[in-house]
Amino acid sequence: MAKNPLVRCLALEAPPPDLGDNTADLDRLKKAVHEGLSGDEAGRPLVIPRARMAETAASFRRHGFRGTALLNMLPAAVEIVDFLPQTPSTVPVAAIDLGTTHLEGVLLDSASGKRLARAHGENSQIKYGDDILSRIHFADRNDIPGCGATGKDRPAGAATGLQILHECIITSINDLLTDLCGQAGIQRNGIRACCISGNTTMVHLLLNLSPHHICREPYIPMVNAPDPCAARELDIDIHQAAPLWILPSIGSYFGGDLISGILTSGLDGAQKPAMLIDVGTNAEVILGNRDWLIACAGAAGPALEGGVAGMGMRAGPGAIDRVRLDTDTWHLDYRTIDSAPPAGLCGSGLIDLVAELYLARIIDLRGKFRTDIEPESPQHAAFLRQHLLRDEGGGRFLVAPAEKAAHQHDVIVNQIDLDSLIRSKAAMYAILTTLVAQVDLEFTDIDTIFVAGAFGKHIDPQRAITLGMLPDLPLSTYRSLGNSSLRGAELILTDEAVRKRSMAIPGRITYIELNVNQEFMIRFSGSRFIPHTDPSLFPSVPFFQSA
Amino acid sequence: MAKNPLVRCLALEAPPPDLGDNTADLDRLKKAVHEGLSGDEAGRPLVIPRARMAETAASFRRHGFRGTALLNMLPAAVEIVDFLPQTPSTVPVAAIDLGTTHLEGVLLDSASGKRLARAHGENSQIKYGDDILSRIHFADRNDIPGCGATGKDRPAGAATGLQILHECIITSINDLLTDLCGQAGIQRNGIRACCISGNTTMVHLLLNLSPHHICREPYIPMVNAPDPCAARELDIDIHQAAPLWILPSIGSYFGGDLISGILTSGLDGAQKPAMLIDVGTNAEVILGNRDWLIACAGAAGPALEGGVAGMGMRAGPGAIDRVRLDTDTWHLDYRTIDSAPPAGLCGSGLIDLVAELYLARIIDLRGKFRTDIEPESPQHAAFLRQHLLRDEGGGRFLVAPAEKAAHQHDVIVNQIDLDSLIRSKAAMYAILTTLVAQVDLEFTDIDTIFVAGAFGKHIDPQRAITLGMLPDLPLSTYRSLGNSSLRGAELILTDEAVRKRSMAIPGRITYIELNVNQEFMIRFSGSRFIPHTDPSLFPSVPFFQSA
Repeated sequence: MAKNPLVRCLALEAPPPDLGDNTADLDRLKKAVHEGLSGDEAGRPLVIPRARMAETAASFRRHGFRGTALLNMLPAAVEIVDFLPQTPSTVPVAAIDLGTTHLEGVLLDSASGKRLARAHGENSQIKYGDDILSRIHFADRNDIPGCGATGKDRPAGAATGLQILHECIITSINDLLTDLCGQAGIQRNGIRACCISGNTTMVHLLLNLSPHHICREPYIPMVNAPDPCAARELDIDIHQAAPLWILPSIGSYFGGDLISGILTSGLDGAQKPAMLIDVGTNAEVILGNRDWLIACAGAAGPALEGGVAGMGMRAGPGAIDRVRLDTDTWHLDYRTIDSAPPAGLCGSGLIDLVAELYLARIIDLRGKFRTDIEPESPQHAAFLRQHLLRDEGGGRFLVAPAEKAAHQHDVIVNQIDLDSLIRSKAAMYAILTTLVAQVDLEFTDIDTIFVAGAFGKHIDPQRAITLGMLPDLPLSTYRSLGNSSLRGAELILTDEAVRKRSMAIPGRITYIELNVNQEFMIRFSGSRFIPHTDPSLFPSVPFFQSA
Repeated sequence: MAKNPLVRCLALEAPPPDLGDNTADLDRLKKAVHEGLSGDEAGRPLVIPRARMAETAASFRRHGFRGTALLNMLPAAVEIVDFLPQTPSTVPVAAIDLGTTHLEGVLLDSASGKRLARAHGENSQIKYGDDILSRIHFADRNDIPGCGATGKDRPAGAATGLQILHECIITSINDLLTDLCGQAGIQRNGIRACCISGNTTMVHLLLNLSPHHICREPYIPMVNAPDPCAARELDIDIHQAAPLWILPSIGSYFGGDLISGILTSGLDGAQKPAMLIDVGTNAEVILGNRDWLIACAGAAGPALEGGVAGMGMRAGPGAIDRVRLDTDTWHLDYRTIDSAPPAGLCGSGLIDLVAELYLARIIDLRGKFRTDIEPESPQHAAFLRQHLLRDEGGGRFLVAPAEKAAHQHDVIVNQIDLDSLIRSKAAMYAILTTLVAQVDLEFTDIDTIFVAGAFGKHIDPQRAITLGMLPDLPLSTYRSLGNSSLRGAELILTDEAVRKRSMAIPGRITYIELNVNQEFMIRFSGSRFIPHTDPSLFPSVPFFQSA
C-alpha cells in the first residue's frame, strides 16, 4: 500500500452553494480539499493550475460537489488537478530508469503501488555516442544538418547537438510509455505522473540543459535538484496535469540513479555503516549510516558493463554471466542469460572467467596470459591447445567456439580485455579503500555492502573478491539491490517519506572528487595485481607468488 | 518607491564553484537568493521554472556568479526567472483595468513604481454584446460559424461563444500592451509581469472559464481567487516568465475591480466606517473599516454609465458632464469633456441635468415632464418653447441643438431616459440604505464616501443629493477615487503589503445578495421620488409638494 502517493485521491463532499454561501466553485473545492488534508500537507499552498480550472470546476459542479479530487502532492504546493465522481480503481503513474544506453520503466497504481506493466527500451541517443563523454561532446556541436530524432521541422544546420540529444530522450521516453500503456490497456493521457531517475548528464539532456561543464574541472552541473514541472512542458506526452519528478543529483558523476539506490537500500537510515556500489558507466560508491554519508565516483565501470571488452556486452539474453573451470577435469562450463546461445560476456561473466583463469594459473597476478605453463595432465594439455590461443598481442582465450555461439563468431577474451578488466577492478578497489579511509574505518566495520543494478544481480562476490575487486569480507555482507534506480523512482511516486528523504539526502552527502585525489592514484597502482600487491588484504584468496 | 514589488531585483554574489564546492549552478543561485531574502519571503519555496533554467544558469555562469537575480515574488513560491549582469534601470510591468467596454493600462517600472506609459482601448468583445449579461449568453453558444477575433484557424461551427470572447479579450489586451510598449520604446517581451483587475465575468472570459452560472441563482462563479499563472499560458504575449496576477473577486457581481477600489481607498484599514461606491454596469458598494467589511451590488448603473439613456455615452470627449440652468435668466449652460462639440450625456451630465430640471420645476417629483408649467417670464416662456418639446411619449428636453452638436443630431433627453435615471438613482439609494441598515448604522456615522471611476471623477455630489441618489451628507464626505481598478492593479505590482491585503480582503467581506432581498425592494420603491418619498431624509433639498 502506498504511503501518501505523489498523486493522491481525496474523497470529499462540499456543501452545495446557496444564496447564503456564494463561495465560487473552485474556491469551494479548495476549502474542502484543505479540510481533508492534515499535518504539513495542510500547511502547503493549494493551487489549481490554470489549464485544469475549467474541467475541474465543471466536473465538481456536475457531480453535485461530491466525489474525489486528484491532488499532486508537490513539495512547494498541493495542486488540485481533477475532480472525479468517485475514486478510480487505479491511478496509473510511471517510473523510469533513464540510463545512458537503456531505459527501463514500470507503470504503477499510485494508491496501491501495484505494478501494472514493465518495459524496457534503448536510449536512442546511442547513435550519437556510446558513452556519457561522447554525448557531452556531441551536445556542444552546433553544426548538425537536417533534423533530429523526432523529425520536427527544422532548417538544415539549425539544430544543436543538445537539441537533438534532448529530442532523442523524449522520443525514447514516449516510446517506452507507449509500450507500458499498450501492456496495461490504457491511454497515454491516463498516466497521471512520471518519475525519472538517471545520471546527471541524462537529466541535463532530458531538461535540454547543456552538460558542457559536467566533464570539465571543477565538474559543476547546471542543476542538481530541478524543481518538478509538468511533464507536458517537456513534450512527455501523458496527462496534461501530470507532474514530472526528477531524482536529484549530487554532482556531475553522482546522479539521481544513485540517490534512488540510497532510497532503496535505506542506507540513509542505517544504524551501522553500510556501503552501496553502483557500477554503470562509472562506479559510484556511497558509504554511511543515518548520521553521515560520504560518496565518490570513478571510471571503474566500462570493462564491467560491456563497454570496453571486445566481447563484452550488457547483461541481456545470450550474455555469459557465469563461468566455472574445473582444474581436475579441465572442463570449462558457462551459463548464459535466458540459456540463449552465447553472444559475449557481461561484467559478471568476465569477472568469473578472469578469476577462474587466475585460480587455474592460466593468467598471472598481473593479469597477463602466462607463456610458461607446463601441462600437468593430458586433459590440461588438450584444454590449453583448445582454449589458449597465442598471438602477437600476448594471447587470447576462447570461451565458446563459433559453432556454438550466437553469431557464428568465436567468443574470445584477449589480453587487451584482461588489461582493461584489471584497470577496472583496481579502480574499484581503490575507490572503496579511499572512501573507507576518509572516515577512518576498516572494511570490517561495514555491516552490509549493497550492489546495485544488473552488476549486483549477476556478480558472484566470491569471484570479485578473488580478483581483488571487492574487499575480502564474509559473503553474507554482500546484497544485490536489483534495478534500484527504477525502484527509487517507484518509491518517490508512492511514498511521501521517500520524497522527503530524496530531498534531504543531497544536503547530507559529502562528495569526494577522485579525479584530483593523490591517495586514490597511489591506491589504484597498488591494486593492479590479483588480488593485490599486499596479499594479506585478501586472506581467503590463494596467492601464487611465483606465477 | 515600490515596497517589495512583485518582480524584484536582487543583487547578489555567489562564491564561484571549485573542487571543494561542487554545488550545481542553479542550486548555487538558489542558495545565494535564499540568503538575500528575509522575513516570510525567506520561508517561501524557491523555484526555478523549467523554461527559465537554461538561460538563467548560463547567464549566472557567464557573469561570474555575480549580478542581479530577477524574482517573481508569488504567494506560494519565489520564482527565480532570470540573471542579469547588473540591476536594470527599469523593469517594466503592466497594470490593466479590464472593463466590459473599455480597457485602460499603464506600464510601470517595477522598482520605482514610476509610470512609463498609459493607454486605453476598446474591449473587442463589444461586437458580441453591449453588456455583461449579453456576453454571458453569447458565451453559452456553440453554434458560431467561422473563426473568432484572433483569426485562428478553426473549422466553421467549431468555436464556442466562450472561446471567441476569450480570444477577443486576449487580442484586446495584447493590442493595449503593444500600444504601451510603443510609447515606452520597449519590446513586448520586455514586460516582466502583468496585473489585471476586472469584474468577475471578464475574469472568467479572460481565463476561458464559462460564466454561465454568474447570472443564474444562486449566482456562483467558477472561481473567485485564481492562482497566478504565466501570462504566456493565456497567450498574453509578454516575457516568457512574466506572471499574470488577477485581482480576486468576491462574487458574481462583485469583482476584482472593486477589490482594487478597496485597496486604493484603504477602506480595509480605516478606523471609522467608510464607504466605497463603484458605478459601472452595476453599482457595487462596500461599507466597513479595519474591523469589518460588508458589500453588495445591484443593477443601478446602466443609466449612469451611458448604457440606457438614448443620448447617454461614456465619459469621453464630447460627453456633456456638467449642466447648469439659471432660473433667473433661463439660460442653460453645459460643459463637455475636452470642450468638444456635444455628442451626448455621460452619467454625471445626466444627473446634473435632471437635478437642474427638478430644481427648475420642469419635471415633477416622480421625474415626469410637467404638463402644467405656467411661464413666469418671457425668458421662461422662450426657454420652454425652445427646450421642452412635447410628443406622444410625454415630452423631450433639448439639451443641445443639432447645429451645435458633434454629429448633427439634437442632443435630447426623453421621458424614457428620465424614467431610467429615476430607477437607477432609486436603486442606488436603496442599495446604500440597505447596506447601512445591515450593520445598524446611520449615514451620519460614515466618515468618508469614496466614489470610484469616471463616475466618481465627474459627478457633482451636490446634484446627486438633490436627486436623492446619494445621502444628504456634507459634501466633504465625498471623495473621488479615479480609476481605482487600474490603481489597484498598479499597487499589486509594486507593494507586497497590498498583495497580502488583496488576498485577505475576500475572506473578510460579508456579501449581501440584493436580488432576493425583500427590504431592498421596499426601499427601492420608496426611493423612486425626487429626492425621496420621505423628504425629511434630504433636508438640504428643496421639496415641491405640489409639483
